[in-house]
Amino acid sequence: MSYEEKIKQLRLVLPPAPKPVGSYCPAMVAGQQVYLSGQLAKSAEGKLMTGKVGKELTLEDGKAAARLAALNVLSVIRNEIGFERFDRVLHVVGYVQAVPEFYDIPQVLNGASDLFVEVFGEKGVHARSAVGVASLPLNSAVEIEVEVQIK
Amino acid sequence: MSYEEKIKQLRLVLPPAPKPVGSYCPAMVAGQQVYLSGQLAKSAEGKLMTGKVGKELTLEDGKAAARLAALNVLSVIRNEIGFERFDRVLHVVGYVQAVPEFYDIPQVLNGASDLFVEVFGEKGVHARSAVGVASLPLNSAVEIEVEVQIK
Amino acid sequence: MSYEEKIKQLRLVLPPAPKPVGSYCPAMVAGQQVYLSGQLAKSAEGKLMTGKVGKELTLEDGKAAARLAALNVLSVIRNEIGFERFDRVLHVVGYVQAVPEFYDIPQVLNGASDLFVEVFGEKGVHARSAVGVASLPLNSAVEIEVEVQIK
Repeated sequence: MSYEEKIKQLRLVLPPAPKPVGSYCPAMVAGQQVYLSGQLAKSAEGKLMTGKVGKELTLEDGKAAARLAALNVLSVIRNEIGFERFDRVLHVVGYVQAVPEFYDIPQVLNGASDLFVEVFGEKGVHARSAVGVASLPLNSAVEIEVEVQIK
Repeated sequence: MSYEEKIKQLRLVLPPAPKPVGSYCPAMVAGQQVYLSGQLAKSAEGKLMTGKVGKELTLEDGKAAARLAALNVLSVIRNEIGFERFDRVLHVVGYVQAVPEFYDIPQVLNGASDLFVEVFGEKGVHARSAVGVASLPLNSAVEIEVEVQIK
Repeated sequence: MSYEEKIKQLRLVLPPAPKPVGSYCPAMVAGQQVYLSGQLAKSAEGKLMTGKVGKELTLEDGKAAARLAALNVLSVIRNEIGFERFDRVLHVVGYVQAVPEFYDIPQVLNGASDLFVEVFGEKGVHARSAVGVASLPLNSAVEIEVEVQIK
């Protein structure tokens, strides 16, 4: 089954791919590695999931935000690389916008990590760092930074 | 026009390149990729721009700090790699030292991203992540982490 | 002297290597580069060093936590790569869980950087970024993210 078919089967709706914004771009190829720009928790309708986990948002909210950010990563992979050229996810740095007393950062980020494995299978497994930060662009609850390998 | 000439034309003054400090070093080559150590908002005179954006510093101050940090990146590229061997900027992670209620992180970091494009043209365009953090080394307002490609 | 002998000579006790945990894994190979998952300040007995530097923990505590996290990195290198295949440390991002008024982040992270050089000599020198963050997984005082090169 192709990744497009898998995405359909899982009834995932990918948000529109972000436009290049001037001095930076959604994805930069370096040999077989591709650096993707950090993706925020933006829905297919363009609505950003905002707030701090542990304050306005629960762990489950945070997990949903991480999944949203990961859907944006998929959209960038599709539009900037193409699924046929994509080989595997290599590395994920997950930033969770949280209050200083919230420590379940890994659980929040599983919302993103698990989605990569749902869609890509073992090609979605990756090395990961998980960090809780004070603030993210536009008050996004989560930001996901990914490096992938291409064929 | 060479990058040195471009830097002169833009009347940019690069800070002195940081010295290796023992266990870590300003730049580490891995094939055609080079990892640069995180650069702080230090002026050519050695003065660090300190404080938190949204408290002691405005958005415009933060943007100036990001530009300063990017000037230090240029200095490291010149001294550790050499402009003639430099190919392009690949990836930028920008850390902004901000209060938890400050969300205009991307605008602050444009101070760095735009400088790379001013100097390197399309070779300065990069993938980017933008993060707001509680504290940075020596109270620096911004830290810029860069990976570049060499020829 | 082999790295195993060096580790014995320094009387270092490596914590047990972390188990793969599902959607992510301890190390991901990409050509000659290996991305390691962020390692926490966990002792060989499995006890995590928790707390915020500048509040529950002093600079010296933080440094010890960074050293612990680096020992976990060594354990991952040994178990996932093997010291005979390991070439050198390339890049370290050190996250210190600290109060917003704590700025001696580099000194804390020297606890990790210095250990890499103690064990690997010049092959342990690396590019580094140092960041202070609000919260880390499980309240760990430090998290160390590393990229290494293999032969």
